[in-house]
Amino acid sequence: MNGAESLVSTMLASNVDVCFANPGTSEMHFIAALDKVQGMRCVLTLFEGVATGAADGYFRIRQKPASTLLHLAPGLANGLANLHNAKKAGSGIVNIVGQHASFHLQYDAPLSGDIEGVARPMSHWVRTSESAAMVARDGAQAIAVARGTPNRIATLILPADASWGAAGPAAAPEAPAAALPPDPVAVDAVLAALRAGGSTVILLGGAALRGNSLEWAGRIAASAGCKLMCEGQNARIERGAGRVRLERLSYDVATAIATLTGVQNLVLIGAKTPVAFFAYPDQPSLLVPPDCRVVTLAGKDQDIEAALEALAAECGLSMSSPVHLEPFQPPALPGGPVTPDGIAAVLGALIPPHAVVVDESISVGRGFFPLTNTAAPHDWMNSMGASLGYALPVAIGAALAAPERKVIALVGDGSAMYTLQSLWTMARERLDVTIVILANRSYNILRSELTKIGVGIPGRTALDMLTLADPDLDWVALAKGHGVPAESAHDLDEFAAQFARGLAADGPYLIELVI
Amino acid sequence: MNGAESLVSTMLASNVDVCFANPGTSEMHFIAALDKVQGMRCVLTLFEGVATGAADGYFRIRQKPASTLLHLAPGLANGLANLHNAKKAGSGIVNIVGQHASFHLQYDAPLSGDIEGVARPMSHWVRTSESAAMVARDGAQAIAVARGTPNRIATLILPADASWGAAGPAAAPEAPAAALPPDPVAVDAVLAALRAGGSTVILLGGAALRGNSLEWAGRIAASAGCKLMCEGQNARIERGAGRVRLERLSYDVATAIATLTGVQNLVLIGAKTPVAFFAYPDQPSLLVPPDCRVVTLAGKDQDIEAALEALAAECGLSMSSPVHLEPFQPPALPGGPVTPDGIAAVLGALIPPHAVVVDESISVGRGFFPLTNTAAPHDWMNSMGASLGYALPVAIGAALAAPERKVIALVGDGSAMYTLQSLWTMARERLDVTIVILANRSYNILRSELTKIGVGIPGRTALDMLTLADPDLDWVALAKGHGVPAESAHDLDEFAAQFARGLAADGPYLIELVI
Repeated sequence: MNGAESLVSTMLASNVDVCFANPGTSEMHFIAALDKVQGMRCVLTLFEGVATGAADGYFRIRQKPASTLLHLAPGLANGLANLHNAKKAGSGIVNIVGQHASFHLQYDAPLSGDIEGVARPMSHWVRTSESAAMVARDGAQAIAVARGTPNRIATLILPADASWGAAGPAAAPEAPAAALPPDPVAVDAVLAALRAGGSTVILLGGAALRGNSLEWAGRIAASAGCKLMCEGQNARIERGAGRVRLERLSYDVATAIATLTGVQNLVLIGAKTPVAFFAYPDQPSLLVPPDCRVVTLAGKDQDIEAALEALAAECGLSMSSPVHLEPFQPPALPGGPVTPDGIAAVLGALIPPHAVVVDESISVGRGFFPLTNTAAPHDWMNSMGASLGYALPVAIGAALAAPERKVIALVGDGSAMYTLQSLWTMARERLDVTIVILANRSYNILRSELTKIGVGIPGRTALDMLTLADPDLDWVALAKGHGVPAESAHDLDEFAAQFARGLAADGPYLIELVI
Repeated sequence: MNGAESLVSTMLASNVDVCFANPGTSEMHFIAALDKVQGMRCVLTLFEGVATGAADGYFRIRQKPASTLLHLAPGLANGLANLHNAKKAGSGIVNIVGQHASFHLQYDAPLSGDIEGVARPMSHWVRTSESAAMVARDGAQAIAVARGTPNRIATLILPADASWGAAGPAAAPEAPAAALPPDPVAVDAVLAALRAGGSTVILLGGAALRGNSLEWAGRIAASAGCKLMCEGQNARIERGAGRVRLERLSYDVATAIATLTGVQNLVLIGAKTPVAFFAYPDQPSLLVPPDCRVVTLAGKDQDIEAALEALAAECGLSMSSPVHLEPFQPPALPGGPVTPDGIAAVLGALIPPHAVVVDESISVGRGFFPLTNTAAPHDWMNSMGASLGYALPVAIGAALAAPERKVIALVGDGSAMYTLQSLWTMARERLDVTIVILANRSYNILRSELTKIGVGIPGRTALDMLTLADPDLDWVALAKGHGVPAESAHDLDEFAAQFARGLAADGPYLIELVI
């Protein structure tokens, strides 16, 4: 067994059995090992940002790490932006990055570079294996880091001679960092806040947005008579009919501040104190009123469900206590010209049960969330790091993680262009993804940002930099070029028909919705 | 004048007047400044790797830096791979990277990240402006770094409050580091080597490959009766009819070693001691025989033309001394099935005078170089860092730098997919680029690499990771999607006709050459 084979064996022993790969020469022993050690699902991507984003999406659904296989410093660099997004989403990922043979590094060959330096800003853990004998142990440690609470990004750098050198057998799984138990002091503090009276908001994030945690939060909010909200961006929310309703904090600073004005107690559960996305010359960074009392029940390093259960017990609640659930109320299918609310109504009516919605709709989609509250039950994902080009890769990972569920990607045209190579991997793997390209032919979000920073009416050069026209992108052709069937919709009737066709298809389907 | 305006003014004062931009909110003041301070040619790209690669291509033609405008840590990260290539090519570039307002950093907003950490591996110089008042001076220093000898990558990080805060006027240009003069000791050592007899190779790189330097090298080699070669990859060579002929060292390790076997003296001029691209279990990293004497006339921090002139004078040569030039011998246009030599013959016959050839043909194109030696005079560029996806962006920069010249991009399909968004910028800017996609539906180079590392016959999983099929990419559709006209060629007759049409077109034109 060589080092690469010992690593693949170690990964399989630790239940890391999916690899999103964009390999080069330095990774060829790892690739060859996949034929000798059976069991790794290896998915080829044509750009590294697709691989890292797919690993993020896979984690968000399965809550277990996938791996990536990347080529030296530049290959890892191409994957960094979606590692940034994954890191902000709290996704666990194991990156395997090939390196030159150790004896070759001194010669400064064309592809040589500072891989550890590239890795560090977007990784929690970085290590270069020193020899073939160390690879299995290093791999087991990387996986433990990715699987710990909170989940983390681990990057293992694999010199070619550590790959091809003789190694021992697979390493046994290492125990990941366990979640911290509920903090009784925090539970008491939250209880005091809930009983203090006045306007109270419970703000949920992370693991609090799903399963039993969400149910407990719903009971507690109903019992205490306080408002239940979620952060402005969320890695995955379980929502829709039969689920606890969550109001989402606005991206818009003025709106978010207005929502929180008068709130006297803010209870954070898996969430952070809300801050503005960007700073503006005349607006505060913090969205919470200065006199608001902020208390934290549990953070991301804690067992959030246990903390909620402990709080519920203190509140005298049990599994049978009432929780306000969202009834099933599909909106009527609208027609006529394309409007944001009309798109949302189509989504709300047609999202199939247990779908996964990957939302990178940016400016057009600000209002999609409330209007899909009453759709069939589904999961909703946001970009957590806001680096554009997250949705198509994340949809790949989600579709692989849950082949029985329909994945819906809602993507602005500007965003989709960053990682459009995703379409080919969707076609190749026959992934069940319906893609809606919200084609407004611009970085529309930046137009409003220009106004917010006080620039006034932008001039011609500035407007040129925000406009994706001349020529218009032809998304039907782009999809066809990648092997994905596509249609173009120009009104809501066409959109509804095409979206329904996409949902009925068994594989990727793209709709260019011209706005 | 605010900080952003003072920076744009400073850049223009230092003759940095092209900006390849992929901006976001934190860059909006810079964008707004472009309307207030006239004179910057700002080119929008849809992915940051296009922007950085375009800046590389611009430098390679003009030998002066362009700037890029990138959005925070993830935006810079997306540009790193082509900064890696540019760094290895010795291109000077000024990156402007927006950052959150300094007071906003403490809140860990979604897009926050370690920008300096991301910048460092691919930058020679990194600085975050501390205030609006410092921006102009920082900008002038960044430009001086990029313009120095050797040219360098400078990354200036611009916090939003340094952009919008009040600032003074533009900073005056700062003097860049000058080239070191010829080293008389080195000149004497090279002279001794040339006179020592035995097999001698002069290996040229960098600035030695162009203009007077190349002519001097040609005279010296002819006079000393030694072989003139260039490195395996070169940022830009002036070649073709009427130019000094250069033999290029092979990428293939065994071939390169065979070429250098028996060489007793190796003279390096702007070149490095040749090393293998990758290490292999049973092959040396160094390509030079152990007993070969290696002497360096001048490195990249020196005035290479002056060093060559000094050496020529010592050899008793003058401007009128004979130099062996390449005669004009266009090959006959071949027909029939597609072969690598047939493609090369079409190129050799049709490359128009003074064209710029950007070569990322990888496996198919290994033999293009010798067979185009006698084409009309042209420039030939290689990827210097070997990170895939360099050619289309570099072609953008080259076309903007030399609008009067035809740019030809020869790109493998696998490579082209990394930065295919380049096509849109070519269409938008009406750039005169003819693109040949060498569509062999695979990462073909990796198949041979698998053999070289001793894996034997690859299994099905390994082969799957090297194959770009199922589905085939449709490059005609991909080009159309980006607004670029395209055709598909299946034999050499079709290719020659389509290539001629592309060359006759006044704007981008893509040919998918199916191999």
